[in-house]
Amino acid sequence: MEEQLDEINRLLKERHFSEVKNRIKDENPADLALLFEELFGENFDEKAEFMMLFRLLPRDSAAETFAHMNGDMQGHLIGMFTDKELREILDELYIDDTVDMIEDLPANVVSRILQNSTTGERKAINDILRYPKDSAGSVMTIEYVSLHQDMTVAEAFEKIRKVGVNKETIYTCYVTENRRLIGVVTVKDLFTAEDDEKIGDIMETHIISVDTHEDKEVVGQMFRKYNFLALPVVDKDNRLVGIVTFDDAMDVIEEENTEDISRWAAVSPNEDSYFRTGVFKHAKSRIVWLLILMISATITQLITTHYEDAFKVIPLLVSFMPMIMDTGGNCGAQSSTLIIRGIALEEIHFSDFFRVVFKEFRISIIVSSILAVVNGVRIYFQYGWYENNLLLAITVALSIVATVILSKMLGAMLPMLAKKVKLDPAIMATPLITTIVDCTSLFIYFNIATIVFSNLMR
Amino acid sequence: MEEQLDEINRLLKERHFSEVKNRIKDENPADLALLFEELFGENFDEKAEFMMLFRLLPRDSAAETFAHMNGDMQGHLIGMFTDKELREILDELYIDDTVDMIEDLPANVVSRILQNSTTGERKAINDILRYPKDSAGSVMTIEYVSLHQDMTVAEAFEKIRKVGVNKETIYTCYVTENRRLIGVVTVKDLFTAEDDEKIGDIMETHIISVDTHEDKEVVGQMFRKYNFLALPVVDKDNRLVGIVTFDDAMDVIEEENTEDISRWAAVSPNEDSYFRTGVFKHAKSRIVWLLILMISATITQLITTHYEDAFKVIPLLVSFMPMIMDTGGNCGAQSSTLIIRGIALEEIHFSDFFRVVFKEFRISIIVSSILAVVNGVRIYFQYGWYENNLLLAITVALSIVATVILSKMLGAMLPMLAKKVKLDPAIMATPLITTIVDCTSLFIYFNIATIVFSNLMR
Repeated sequence: MEEQLDEINRLLKERHFSEVKNRIKDENPADLALLFEELFGENFDEKAEFMMLFRLLPRDSAAETFAHMNGDMQGHLIGMFTDKELREILDELYIDDTVDMIEDLPANVVSRILQNSTTGERKAINDILRYPKDSAGSVMTIEYVSLHQDMTVAEAFEKIRKVGVNKETIYTCYVTENRRLIGVVTVKDLFTAEDDEKIGDIMETHIISVDTHEDKEVVGQMFRKYNFLALPVVDKDNRLVGIVTFDDAMDVIEEENTEDISRWAAVSPNEDSYFRTGVFKHAKSRIVWLLILMISATITQLITTHYEDAFKVIPLLVSFMPMIMDTGGNCGAQSSTLIIRGIALEEIHFSDFFRVVFKEFRISIIVSSILAVVNGVRIYFQYGWYENNLLLAITVALSIVATVILSKMLGAMLPMLAKKVKLDPAIMATPLITTIVDCTSLFIYFNIATIVFSNLMR
Repeated sequence: MEEQLDEINRLLKERHFSEVKNRIKDENPADLALLFEELFGENFDEKAEFMMLFRLLPRDSAAETFAHMNGDMQGHLIGMFTDKELREILDELYIDDTVDMIEDLPANVVSRILQNSTTGERKAINDILRYPKDSAGSVMTIEYVSLHQDMTVAEAFEKIRKVGVNKETIYTCYVTENRRLIGVVTVKDLFTAEDDEKIGDIMETHIISVDTHEDKEVVGQMFRKYNFLALPVVDKDNRLVGIVTFDDAMDVIEEENTEDISRWAAVSPNEDSYFRTGVFKHAKSRIVWLLILMISATITQLITTHYEDAFKVIPLLVSFMPMIMDTGGNCGAQSSTLIIRGIALEEIHFSDFFRVVFKEFRISIIVSSILAVVNGVRIYFQYGWYENNLLLAITVALSIVATVILSKMLGAMLPMLAKKVKLDPAIMATPLITTIVDCTSLFIYFNIATIVFSNLMR
């Protein structure tokens, strides 16, 4: 790979253009975009080579390669394009890719794009841009095949052959009447029907569609559930305004996953990838939760201060604090993570509340008993069971059992309660659970210690 | 929804079968499977109603509904099927769905399935079952359309019409010669070509395929990158043995995500969903990491014990321990989570090592400064800055800065190093990072405290 890059770089610099052209002609656009990124991603000083390489792309993959590039690259390319080149690329791009690109570009570049679009394209772009940021409307495309119910199968085939080249998918066709969506027919249906059958007779009329303003997360869930190739997007009067294709749905699912994962780690989600997000933006998206969690730790501080007398008498108590807090945090994290994921995959609902809590209770009994016993054995070997150490082992064992049970309960309940009050369950992930569990586990630990060692503390 | 369920349940019990039939006839198979699960999921006592409802399904969606059900339900249904019914369902199922099902069922049910399959089906099932568990071969299907390069477009259309009904996808067709894969042609290509053109002239010969033994994670990554509808699976001699379709690839991606997320929470991944995994299996998949992490906490214990003198003199030191450990843990978790996700999405590679570390370094400078200042202000308002409290504020501030920087460095480096030595980066997620950061942060904290308060401790 590395060698291949150097080779193409050398060939470009030595102006062996036909050789370069030959090497890249069969590559997939996704790989070509990666090649551009790896050759020129870090700096755009070598603008001349960059533009040259782009002009050497085969005609039919130039636009798709362009669509795979990141916003920076697209912006730079557009700056170097002639109006004619720009129009050619825009003509080849699907409207949803154009809209994706526009959202990332500076205003002056955007206005150049709009100037070089047709009136129809401009209207379509503006329509899609008007939908709320995370709505189904914002991820849809308008390039679908529409049919009439009176058409025969043969006529439908003819229409697809005529208009299909410019459609993002031809495999699912939409039957409309006065712009209202009345049926769906797949190319597979067409293939298995007779030429003279009417579309109205073979179309599926029980249509699953999504509203333009529906959250795109729901779009992802529907694709996951139904394995669609494309999902129709309708307005409130059931008029077909666009479709979401499976590749865009896959992007949505990946984005939602990344967003969830960020939240789990107490990072406010960023739209951009790791490297494309600046240092200050990274810091900003991390500091909020860190501050909240740090301030909440004041509670653990108050608890610890309150039991100062206990560890003044038995200093060894302090040394078990990290272990008990961590074990509680890890147990809570395990439960909350599994429950949050289950909610996201729609396997767990609020109606399962008691079923989940009871299950976690039983799991925590098993897990905590094992941990307590192992820890008792460890204390025996490390300190021996004489004098206060037996009491200490008992304190730690009881604390582990109580902490594990409580943290697993909390880890299971809090995400479900969050969902119930329409919060994102992911905020109840590891960091917040850990902080909550820290307080409860220290409280439990010192209380048990005070009782067990009561004769020493008087 | 709830009402609809009760209604169908009532209609079934009162034997209003035609009414039930009418209500479910237009439902999507995925929804029908859900209906079965919600009506009978908890207990199979109502076997009679269950079987009745299944027999009321429209002929063309019975098999697909069956494919969407969970293993328990499928097993129960097969137990109640007549041989004829079983044969009908098996005939309609795609081979990959049959294989999925077989992997979940007890041996006696499996042998009944194999007895009711044709010799060809039985061979295909056994072939797929022989591939390693997480390989491309294990998730592929063998029901694809193959074409010859000498065929004309019209002949290809004819072949698709003839064999297409039973193929999992017809939209990508594979051109083979002596079973070797020599080209790929989509139905869209066929639509935009002339009837008398030769397949050999319009097919794409630069084929992206995957080896039967390739990890299915790679299959998911290829779908994410190339937006394929289907990916051909070839053996080591480039003979086409099957295809993976996008819906199965989506399942693979979801599974991989769930697996990663489990690992991040120190849970060994389970194949089954939350509810379908038993209490003991849940406990087993959680206890291993809990034990490892608990035992590792022995190190924090040794550190704490070693600095016993420090907190004997200034007991307030103890009360900041949880806050410093948690802040360090949270910072490390933020970095490691983002880096692990970046590696999974192939945005971050080992060659970016220093770039990432430098970026995290700059972020940690900003973040830690803010945290230290806010904490200083808090200490001032809580305790005032007299006597030892100013020294304490300085100790805590310095500890926060050092801990945050170190934990962000570790959080960034460890996943990349894990990847480099071919470990799953996800093991370097929150729990392990937290444990490592706990040790380092306490070490830093007590060392700084010893220096700052050196005059008091002598």
